[in-house]
Amino acid sequence: MDARSLQAAFVAVRSNKLFEIFVISVILASALLVGVKTYEISPGMRRLTDALDLAVTLFFVTEIVIRFIASENRRRFFHDFWNIFDTLIVVVSLVPVDNSDMALVARLVRVFRVLRMVSFIPELRLLLVSLVKALPQLGYVMLLLFIIFYIYAAIGSTLFETINPRLWGDIALSMLTLFRVMTFEDWTDVMYETMEVYPLSWVFYVTFIFFTAFAFLNMIIGIVVNVMEEEHRGMQAKAAASRGEPTLSDVHEQLQAIREHLESRAGNR
Amino acid sequence: MDARSLQAAFVAVRSNKLFEIFVISVILASALLVGVKTYEISPGMRRLTDALDLAVTLFFVTEIVIRFIASENRRRFFHDFWNIFDTLIVVVSLVPVDNSDMALVARLVRVFRVLRMVSFIPELRLLLVSLVKALPQLGYVMLLLFIIFYIYAAIGSTLFETINPRLWGDIALSMLTLFRVMTFEDWTDVMYETMEVYPLSWVFYVTFIFFTAFAFLNMIIGIVVNVMEEEHRGMQAKAAASRGEPTLSDVHEQLQAIREHLESRAGNR
Amino acid sequence: MDARSLQAAFVAVRSNKLFEIFVISVILASALLVGVKTYEISPGMRRLTDALDLAVTLFFVTEIVIRFIASENRRRFFHDFWNIFDTLIVVVSLVPVDNSDMALVARLVRVFRVLRMVSFIPELRLLLVSLVKALPQLGYVMLLLFIIFYIYAAIGSTLFETINPRLWGDIALSMLTLFRVMTFEDWTDVMYETMEVYPLSWVFYVTFIFFTAFAFLNMIIGIVVNVMEEEHRGMQAKAAASRGEPTLSDVHEQLQAIREHLESRAGNR
Amino acid sequence: MDARSLQAAFVAVRSNKLFEIFVISVILASALLVGVKTYEISPGMRRLTDALDLAVTLFFVTEIVIRFIASENRRRFFHDFWNIFDTLIVVVSLVPVDNSDMALVARLVRVFRVLRMVSFIPELRLLLVSLVKALPQLGYVMLLLFIIFYIYAAIGSTLFETINPRLWGDIALSMLTLFRVMTFEDWTDVMYETMEVYPLSWVFYVTFIFFTAFAFLNMIIGIVVNVMEEEHRGMQAKAAASRGEPTLSDVHEQLQAIREHLESRAGNR
Repeated sequence: MDARSLQAAFVAVRSNKLFEIFVISVILASALLVGVKTYEISPGMRRLTDALDLAVTLFFVTEIVIRFIASENRRRFFHDFWNIFDTLIVVVSLVPVDNSDMALVARLVRVFRVLRMVSFIPELRLLLVSLVKALPQLGYVMLLLFIIFYIYAAIGSTLFETINPRLWGDIALSMLTLFRVMTFEDWTDVMYETMEVYPLSWVFYVTFIFFTAFAFLNMIIGIVVNVMEEEHRGMQAKAAASRGEPTLSDVHEQLQAIREHLESRAGNR
Repeated sequence: MDARSLQAAFVAVRSNKLFEIFVISVILASALLVGVKTYEISPGMRRLTDALDLAVTLFFVTEIVIRFIASENRRRFFHDFWNIFDTLIVVVSLVPVDNSDMALVARLVRVFRVLRMVSFIPELRLLLVSLVKALPQLGYVMLLLFIIFYIYAAIGSTLFETINPRLWGDIALSMLTLFRVMTFEDWTDVMYETMEVYPLSWVFYVTFIFFTAFAFLNMIIGIVVNVMEEEHRGMQAKAAASRGEPTLSDVHEQLQAIREHLESRAGNR
Repeated sequence: MDARSLQAAFVAVRSNKLFEIFVISVILASALLVGVKTYEISPGMRRLTDALDLAVTLFFVTEIVIRFIASENRRRFFHDFWNIFDTLIVVVSLVPVDNSDMALVARLVRVFRVLRMVSFIPELRLLLVSLVKALPQLGYVMLLLFIIFYIYAAIGSTLFETINPRLWGDIALSMLTLFRVMTFEDWTDVMYETMEVYPLSWVFYVTFIFFTAFAFLNMIIGIVVNVMEEEHRGMQAKAAASRGEPTLSDVHEQLQAIREHLESRAGNR
Repeated sequence: MDARSLQAAFVAVRSNKLFEIFVISVILASALLVGVKTYEISPGMRRLTDALDLAVTLFFVTEIVIRFIASENRRRFFHDFWNIFDTLIVVVSLVPVDNSDMALVARLVRVFRVLRMVSFIPELRLLLVSLVKALPQLGYVMLLLFIIFYIYAAIGSTLFETINPRLWGDIALSMLTLFRVMTFEDWTDVMYETMEVYPLSWVFYVTFIFFTAFAFLNMIIGIVVNVMEEEHRGMQAKAAASRGEPTLSDVHEQLQAIREHLESRAGNR
């Protein structure tokens, strides 16, 4: 019975409103700590932030353990994506900061604690889930975009490699350069350089911009249409159902009933 | 009765069409004055603009006082946002220009008188109100965007601080640099600099651009869907109501009536 | 009867299919001439293009005269926007090219003959008309955008004039600089310059970008919603009318008729 | 019967699932080869890639021949766009790489084999077809955009040719420069240069940006509205048909039947 009562106590802690507020304060504090550490701070402050950091780490471990023990079915605990997400963030931030070799990695890893904000606020979780769900719909447009990039990068690194190996050295560099062209970032500098050797190379850039812009436009329209469609369906269902308004089907059934009523009376006579 | 008749006189002034035209002319004149003062002008002109400035200030004070006295319920005068808005603009522009220390502040403060144009034209007021109303809907996407910025800025200032402290010195500077990257403004200059130390740092920039672009897209779609939904609802209501066209509910009721009529007759027999 | 038969002949010419094709060929030729003249050409070619130019000018004058004479009501000829448009283009291109002083102006003026393409193709005319019609809807957002620009330009030229008079010299220059910032064109160069004097001046740029982006977004959404609404109304009307499908009103009337029929029968008994 | 059984065997090969997987692997391999060849590789690797390249070429030829023989109607084989597309890609990649003069061309031509990915995956084919189908709708907006470009380029090369012949030398160069201005790429550098000679030339750039932005906006709205309309029509049809829900027409017919029934009974009496 001991383990049971312990679990019950942990469930009570987890559902406690004050505990929730405390958790979010710790998450905010850990986020602030991440920011503070990027400034030049005095050794005293440094010791303080290190101590706070340790406290946050310990608290996060405790909180995960409480949630694990308080969970109804411990085997299913790691079936939930957000539990894995939180545990991972907590575990990797256990890397000690002291070791000078790992110090940078440890600092970087602690940054990701800010992501606990996402896993804690349901609305942000929903947003992230909907973002991830939107990705597969874009699959084929992404693939097409990648093929366009790949072909142009192959042509670019074949033709322009000798002109500027830093930009067109291999297919990976060329794709990065093309990404830059797609964002319109100093793309004419890249173009004027190659136009000195191949005066017609502007065709390469202008067609690339057209193709990618078109593919992008298609992607955006695809998303918008999808969102609208769902929205529309949801609205129709809501309009019909929630306000108790009759649908065409209801009217249809009524008419059917009237007709049968009339016909049965005609038959009775 | 003296105060009463004074108030009545003020109400008359405030509702006067000519007075309204005069107010808008003064607002326009004050806006023009703001512009003129940015040019090099002769001492004579300077004296003229200073005199006009004083005249505008006095007029604005007078107008606010008239509106205050003419208001039905003086206690509620400051419950209206636009009254506070106007009063604030007028009060802060009372800062004297003569004092050389405050001269710059006084000049800046007078610029905001142009905002009286917004409070005077109802359509602009509506626009501003609808802009402000749209903000809370964007709350969570904004928060997500901020978290993305914060994490990337923390990573950036951890890794790149030694490369270029002007861009990545602390988390605030890093966020400004990332804002620049988001607007695609010479972002490759920033990237090529860090790629010399960390050749894979392009991943940092490209993923950041993807995440922010995606979050932005989400934000825009959110707004569009919202606007459309309201629009749609408004249209449906209008279509049904204003043109007197029957709705499905009307048809439903009619059928109910016919059915009852038929059944009562069947019962009568 | 002479004048009458002349007009009839001119009407015949104007409606002739071959004449139409000839007109469009001349318009295309005049457009090509405009392009050719921007290249270095031999004196022989120059004489040829000048001769063709004269021929095009004469033809355009003739065509306008034919249309004028062939028009049913000559007084109303200049009530039509496109007639005025065409006449203006033709008249200004009568400026002689020979005069060395006016040569540049004459060349520029001939460029606008390309616009006759717009007035000749009905679809382009429609596009232009719909663009112009869309403008007034944007009126207030434009005004708001202008006020934002004006206030920021006034602040900018007050604070930053001494830092870079070329960018912030007066309110007009400042508005041009802000337009540049709005297009994200090397805006950080402008910002870093002022941040050396006022370290917090990034607030000025970031808020400006937010405000203008928001106003722009509003404008675009406004247009999209407008277009959709019209589209939607058009579709509903078409769906109901053209395919002969019954509307709710038709069903309503039918039910009314049935009810009256039933009641009259009930009364008859 | 020999030729017949051969064809049957080829049909069997073409429809084989394993063969399909093999084809896509070869396409992927050929795409990877294109990428690998842009890197500096050892002579041994070079020989390997050349051998693989030959193998891919031979396989592609074989595959096309199998598809040709297996096709039901060989005369119609080249009536299908995708067959022509594939054959063209395969035929041009038969250009030998050995010949030093043609080596570059041969390498470039092999890049286009990546496009076989598009012709192999039905979803990508659909995407490309829908992109091409969307183009004619944009025809007139494109023409208007071209006219705007042409007029501004003619004015630009007339006025600014002496200032910077590299940017404004002739109408083609000017159009490229204007395309650059449209993408906001260092457009102020171009503007400040001409503003030194013509201080008012900012009008040229600002109006150009407004016109093109407006035309673009129109284009995008045009596409979105089109897509929505189709979507909407499809949804209405689906909603009515697939779920077997009654339409207003059904209700109309029912009422007609009831009415006739009632009237016939009234007549019977």
